[in-house]
Amino acid sequence: MEESVTLYKNFQMNIPETDLPRVVVIGAGFAGLKLARQINTHHYQLVLFDKNNYHTFQPLLYQVASAGLEPDSIAYPVRKTLRRKKNMYFRLTEVNKVDREQKKVFTEIGDLRYDYLVIATGATNNFFGIDAMEKNSMPMKSLTEALDLRSKMLENYERAIYTQDLNERIRLMNVVIVGAGPTGVELAGAIAELRNKILPKDFPDLDFRQMSIHLIEAAPRVLVAMSEKSSKRALKYLKKLNVNVHLDTAVKDYKNGVVTTNQEREFLADTVIWAAGVAGDHPEGFHTDELAKGNRIKVNSYCQVPDDEQVYILGDSAYLETEEYPKGLPMLGSVAMQAGAYLAKQFNRKAKGKEIKPFQYVDKGTMATIGRNLAVADFKRYKLGGAFAWITWMFVHLMLLVGFRNRVIVFINWTWNYFRYNNGLRLIVRPFRKKNKSKE
Amino acid sequence: MEESVTLYKNFQMNIPETDLPRVVVIGAGFAGLKLARQINTHHYQLVLFDKNNYHTFQPLLYQVASAGLEPDSIAYPVRKTLRRKKNMYFRLTEVNKVDREQKKVFTEIGDLRYDYLVIATGATNNFFGIDAMEKNSMPMKSLTEALDLRSKMLENYERAIYTQDLNERIRLMNVVIVGAGPTGVELAGAIAELRNKILPKDFPDLDFRQMSIHLIEAAPRVLVAMSEKSSKRALKYLKKLNVNVHLDTAVKDYKNGVVTTNQEREFLADTVIWAAGVAGDHPEGFHTDELAKGNRIKVNSYCQVPDDEQVYILGDSAYLETEEYPKGLPMLGSVAMQAGAYLAKQFNRKAKGKEIKPFQYVDKGTMATIGRNLAVADFKRYKLGGAFAWITWMFVHLMLLVGFRNRVIVFINWTWNYFRYNNGLRLIVRPFRKKNKSKE
Repeated sequence: MEESVTLYKNFQMNIPETDLPRVVVIGAGFAGLKLARQINTHHYQLVLFDKNNYHTFQPLLYQVASAGLEPDSIAYPVRKTLRRKKNMYFRLTEVNKVDREQKKVFTEIGDLRYDYLVIATGATNNFFGIDAMEKNSMPMKSLTEALDLRSKMLENYERAIYTQDLNERIRLMNVVIVGAGPTGVELAGAIAELRNKILPKDFPDLDFRQMSIHLIEAAPRVLVAMSEKSSKRALKYLKKLNVNVHLDTAVKDYKNGVVTTNQEREFLADTVIWAAGVAGDHPEGFHTDELAKGNRIKVNSYCQVPDDEQVYILGDSAYLETEEYPKGLPMLGSVAMQAGAYLAKQFNRKAKGKEIKPFQYVDKGTMATIGRNLAVADFKRYKLGGAFAWITWMFVHLMLLVGFRNRVIVFINWTWNYFRYNNGLRLIVRPFRKKNKSKE
Repeated sequence: MEESVTLYKNFQMNIPETDLPRVVVIGAGFAGLKLARQINTHHYQLVLFDKNNYHTFQPLLYQVASAGLEPDSIAYPVRKTLRRKKNMYFRLTEVNKVDREQKKVFTEIGDLRYDYLVIATGATNNFFGIDAMEKNSMPMKSLTEALDLRSKMLENYERAIYTQDLNERIRLMNVVIVGAGPTGVELAGAIAELRNKILPKDFPDLDFRQMSIHLIEAAPRVLVAMSEKSSKRALKYLKKLNVNVHLDTAVKDYKNGVVTTNQEREFLADTVIWAAGVAGDHPEGFHTDELAKGNRIKVNSYCQVPDDEQVYILGDSAYLETEEYPKGLPMLGSVAMQAGAYLAKQFNRKAKGKEIKPFQYVDKGTMATIGRNLAVADFKRYKLGGAFAWITWMFVHLMLLVGFRNRVIVFINWTWNYFRYNNGLRLIVRPFRKKNKSKE
């Protein structure tokens, strides 16, 4: 099917030139999607780019990886969200470069002029220069990565059945998670529940007491961005679920199936999950001195690039210092969502000739769930734990999901899992092994 | 991760030798799964092989391809089905060869002795020697193929937006389906409903009146295995949904995006779906004279290979002539299910010293659904059409689905779609384009 590819190269954008100012948004994550939904397209033409045709609800990716939810539960098609809006154009492609002199973006399907540019491309994995990790560990920042991780774990249990070598079997069953932030902690808890309750029923041939889950963290506590109290609770919950937590431990290398650290401990595992660091991700077109720690683009309190006020950066790709956050706003979904809503509002105000206000992030609290009835939540006045935090976590995440259908499906799944201890379907939906050519 | 592969080669089966006779079943389709669930494993050791870790409900594959259902709705993990059975071993691998002298099967993870062998490997696509079709058309016999087909169609609409060349746009939007059996007819109907009601809302940039759906059939009528009355009805329904049906038309070639036939008509389409023929699929180890039309293995009325009574063939891979079916039982899910249940019963009878009875297929009717309120059903005495047949079809398929969870999810989806005309999520869950290496 060579033709399709050739053809594709000749494509043009096919977006009309109108009198309306054109706002080009790169990325349909929390920030970009919020902006696209709330901007008034009677006053602006909006063009949204994303490399996927769906929005991913990243906070629940770990449940897809641990086979508790299916991809369709946490993904929502961009076109469906934007259906009823006029002057709104979605284009499925990756934006490689922006040229701020020419005011143009360059994509795989051609280039496009902008009046306002909004970069909301989020974050990607940061391996801090550890090559072995970049090559051999599994990241979990996208839906396809989460599915790959799930398939790999499930295939490894199938393989573990056949080996007579105990070390090999343990290597295939073990899981090492690097990084005890929310992703690492939530994933460790979910995999521990799988191991404790579910996998032994699926694989009667295996002894799951042989399987260890190691959570490795360079800092002296888990969930370092949360309160001390919540850290302690989370650690207690993780131990309750029999996760081996290694604090003050930095990963050094991973070869021959062994993870080495700056401590004496080594870890045997075929599945090593990278949840230790993220860095801002953005198209080419920014100078080094415009970037801050973690490859994020510095913005002023209006979310603008200081010398280039027609360019806005939102969410994880932005670096915004405030009085309350002298090291920059945290890279959280809630910051991205609020920034998207903020910018839509400002565009709508500007169209009506009203003055523009600076962005103010309101911390509504942070949460992490470790397992059944085990979660922690930090609010300004209260630090919650246990079943109450868990129910709060579930309620908040259900409400944040895009699409009523997704909410219903996730709710049914969670209720089901709660009463049946029977967490999802554990399908390996990829060719397990290519068919022998000789058979054709 | 070379090691995993090397390791994998050294694996052994890890199935204990016991006093119980060992029944080896290849394939967890309708026949194999039914047998595995109903055989009494107090009297037999059962080993089940499949190349996927899930059972696929093939009659609804077309709804996955047309984005009405997600894969998890019609797939069910084999291990979950067999959880509570003892002396039952599932192994995820492909069986390449059987050696009936040695009474052994050869798989990618080693070989295994059998006392009884049951081949229930189903069918694969038969391209009747048309190379261009084998290379460039999309088949739809497995979950991954159905997902590929969906992704291709959705990506083509995204691409169609960019081209200024009308012919190219039409080529990207058009769909040609070869073969008007149940799969072809159901898929044509589902894609037509997508085009008529749903895609125009998703893609306001495209004019879906430019998109044609061509259903090409060599026989003089659609659904040739059903009654004349149902054929006529189905044709009427297809026309109502604006599917272009071309009867008495045999496909000859497909190149440069054009399908040629034995008639003058040619068809421009990037998406060509092969639903014209299937052939039995089985491991190596059978002589040509043991095979019948369509690569199926001939069996006697006990579903045994005539000269080798410890080998049974069930479902689509079997060829069984009866008085009522002098050309062999049809390749249908219902035949496979009944054969699986039959064989389990005979094994259970044999264990208790009871006599064995021959297999008798009971035709409970055949059905096909073309669209909303449009279905046909052939029963012995009645030929149904329209909304009543459609409701019957839905009820029967819901009941046949494995797993209560799947039934609930499919039921919710169908109800939703009925009232909202908003058919599923249309996710393209595969990397749309690999990331530029230069960016790393």
